Amino acid sequence: MDPRPNTGNCSLNWFDQRVDHFTTLNTTYKQVRGEWHGLNTVSRVCRQRFYVYDKFWKRRADGSKEDGPIFFYCGNEGDVTLYVNSTGLMWENAQAFGALIVFAEHRYFGTQAALRKSFPFGDQHKDHLQYLTHDQALADYAVLLRSLQQQNNVDVPVIAFGGSYGGMLAAWFRIKYPTTIRGAIAASAPIFANSIGYADNFQGTDYWKVVTHDASPAAGSAANCIPNVARKTVDAPLLEGFHLGLAHLSSLFKTCTPLKSRSDVEALALTLMMAWDTMAMGNFPFPSNYLTEGKADMPAFPVRVACDHMAPTFDLTNDNGTAALLVAMKAATDIFTNATRDVACIAVQEDYDGNWDYMWCSQLLAQESYFNTNGVTDMFWARNITLDKIARDCQTKWGVTPNPDWIRTVYGSADALLKSTSNIVFSNGGFDPWSSGGVLANSNPQITLVDIPEGAHHLDLMFSDPRDPASVVQARQTEIQHIRAWLRDA
Amino acid sequence: MDPRPNTGNCSLNWFDQRVDHFTTLNTTYKQVRGEWHGLNTVSRVCRQRFYVYDKFWKRRADGSKEDGPIFFYCGNEGDVTLYVNSTGLMWENAQAFGALIVFAEHRYFGTQAALRKSFPFGDQHKDHLQYLTHDQALADYAVLLRSLQQQNNVDVPVIAFGGSYGGMLAAWFRIKYPTTIRGAIAASAPIFANSIGYADNFQGTDYWKVVTHDASPAAGSAANCIPNVARKTVDAPLLEGFHLGLAHLSSLFKTCTPLKSRSDVEALALTLMMAWDTMAMGNFPFPSNYLTEGKADMPAFPVRVACDHMAPTFDLTNDNGTAALLVAMKAATDIFTNATRDVACIAVQEDYDGNWDYMWCSQLLAQESYFNTNGVTDMFWARNITLDKIARDCQTKWGVTPNPDWIRTVYGSADALLKSTSNIVFSNGGFDPWSSGGVLANSNPQITLVDIPEGAHHLDLMFSDPRDPASVVQARQTEIQHIRAWLRDA
Repeated sequence: MDPRPNTGNCSLNWFDQRVDHFTTLNTTYKQVRGEWHGLNTVSRVCRQRFYVYDKFWKRRADGSKEDGPIFFYCGNEGDVTLYVNSTGLMWENAQAFGALIVFAEHRYFGTQAALRKSFPFGDQHKDHLQYLTHDQALADYAVLLRSLQQQNNVDVPVIAFGGSYGGMLAAWFRIKYPTTIRGAIAASAPIFANSIGYADNFQGTDYWKVVTHDASPAAGSAANCIPNVARKTVDAPLLEGFHLGLAHLSSLFKTCTPLKSRSDVEALALTLMMAWDTMAMGNFPFPSNYLTEGKADMPAFPVRVACDHMAPTFDLTNDNGTAALLVAMKAATDIFTNATRDVACIAVQEDYDGNWDYMWCSQLLAQESYFNTNGVTDMFWARNITLDKIARDCQTKWGVTPNPDWIRTVYGSADALLKSTSNIVFSNGGFDPWSSGGVLANSNPQITLVDIPEGAHHLDLMFSDPRDPASVVQARQTEIQHIRAWLRDA
Repeated sequence: MDPRPNTGNCSLNWFDQRVDHFTTLNTTYKQVRGEWHGLNTVSRVCRQRFYVYDKFWKRRADGSKEDGPIFFYCGNEGDVTLYVNSTGLMWENAQAFGALIVFAEHRYFGTQAALRKSFPFGDQHKDHLQYLTHDQALADYAVLLRSLQQQNNVDVPVIAFGGSYGGMLAAWFRIKYPTTIRGAIAASAPIFANSIGYADNFQGTDYWKVVTHDASPAAGSAANCIPNVARKTVDAPLLEGFHLGLAHLSSLFKTCTPLKSRSDVEALALTLMMAWDTMAMGNFPFPSNYLTEGKADMPAFPVRVACDHMAPTFDLTNDNGTAALLVAMKAATDIFTNATRDVACIAVQEDYDGNWDYMWCSQLLAQESYFNTNGVTDMFWARNITLDKIARDCQTKWGVTPNPDWIRTVYGSADALLKSTSNIVFSNGGFDPWSSGGVLANSNPQITLVDIPEGAHHLDLMFSDPRDPASVVQARQTEIQHIRAWLRDA
């Protein structure tokens, strides 16, 4: 096996899923055109992609006392191969547990070459987004696991793993399907990052406060970084009126199309802000391509590297000093934006995250681009995003209005949710802005919180590395101990 | 208040529900005809009927320490008024708990005058049965309760009540929405009566064994009853060849149309068998109209009364004796079939239970007409109903094939289900054939089983009566004690 196991070690598999698990028939475009066929329509199925590694799996035939468990990764809003190739925690521990490893792709998120991945309607999927809900995704996982148990004629415990949205799914999977899932490792899972349903527990500005923390000396970044970022460069109103002019700004930032208006400048500023966000999430102690979808490495501690560009003192009383600061900002954000080193120009981002944005717009799953900033607890400028504005944007983009209460209705208040469940480890990293929406307090002894002060976005799921801080080494040990205990207590 | 509170004491209310809770948009007949409107379609809502009684509800304003709980009835496969008018357990205890009483109607089961009740598509509902699933019904209840809590600006504990399918829903509601439901009284809930998913725990023949038990001396019935029923009268093959002839049979049983074939005779036999079934379910110690949908009383212990007709010794060596036995069988089954005393003829039943049968055919919910008999452990004749036959029948009737594994996938194996949950009382009656699919063994201290040897179908939910056996008085006390404990342990 490769030093770091990956998709090359796994078998690639496909599973027929019902497009809609919660109605007994499915209607589709072709089936309903012209006449309504009602009861004569057939269930519409789609193919779900999943990867399996079975060489660690201990079976009774091997002389073991009983069949080993299943380690199941709850695929996120992305190509599942990213999680196969990154989730070291599963790979490094499966052998000791004699576990079967399964990574499942989330419906509608196979990306590219849609027909070959978990896209129920291929290139037409945008016409059928109504089936893209986390409820359906969990049912996909439950049905897939049931089938795997039946095919192998076993009924072995399943441990769910996931990071970020995958971590939310892992936790929710344990909550809603406790007989399917023995326990869950929910890493950096912002299950309370829903500014309506969990208002008391979550403030969007906390998210950007953590991004800003990553740029502070306390997090190892240059002392001047926060002041320099805060002073000018991503402050959209300042940029707009900037006496260098739009043409000069366009040139300094190498925008793919010239900046022409205030809103163009704001979009540029938001693009830069999102680069700081991504670097904070990916502020790992080693080079990693996780946040670039596997395309190119960002360096170890990318926020520190970015902040090194923002370390000098810039004299903003003259155009040269001002331009130098903007060039520094460009260089800083290029750590992410041009991680591949072959990006000729900055494409100013207008829309964020495609189908994921649809999930925000329909079920209010977490979406950082809608969280507010205040310019006080963070190094950015004040943005006040109201539910009204969100509803308007969502109507324009997707023709849906967010249902602000569905997740709260399904899972309950934060306190009630934590009291009602068991066998979940929630981990949060101090460098990770998503910790703002994570589970940070709990009184249920059957729920475990793990704090990783020097950790970025679910560092605990990654492969072990000599550069790991002690806190993540300890976090992983805690997680494994809990898995062992869950498996012991039948 | 009336001695027995009923719909007359309640306020009648309506709530707008999404037809489909688990997709983010709903498509409908009109909206998709001709062209697919995709993202431009709007959510389709339907009205759910529910009854509320709030005069017992203790609120903070009344000086109480905190707001009282909600007693919530999970409506079954029938007009919700039946449950409002019959569920004495809720009415008799709500005042002591200071509880708000809510009875919710199950989608698609308002019966008659469809547009005025919980029928999402009115008279066209049969074209849209795909939304008739227990998953959707539970979501209806969760959304309704969330809205009631919000409207009243409270977050009070909810106790779910239900009998039979309503009891299954109450238990499942606690399992799937533990933050919505503090605890559940699941009376006569045959959650394991699914002959495929729970094969080890349920045999359909056990159902008819209990029906037969009700006709035994041990259950207070005449000694000759079982032998006389078993000897001839509902044995379809015997009836067919019976030398009295089809015309004579038609006349003796007063069938609405003459019997013309073997299958007509089998249908008659099945109708009689279902009458014994219903009398067994309704084998209460007092007259009750519960099993006649409120239309007319059956007498106390209707099986005993029916068996009194079957008590003589019939001489089957001559036609007169044979005819006398058939007349006796007619008189016995008329306790149910002609409970209203104005039924001029027997309409031989071909189809059972309408929309409920659809739920059997799609999700394999319990349906006694598909359970096998063997003529050995029961007083009927051997019927062997295979999954193949069920699938064929369901295709013919509804255009669907049962999904034999959905409930098992969602709730897990019997053992795992019981281990994974808490705060449920499962009660079962010794006279109730549905006890065959109920929870009869359990090792989880947070789940309570209550046995009512002299009880028929969820007798414990009924109004108290001087004729109640001690076992049901004790059962109700146990249930109330548990509710009190659940409410104490926040």
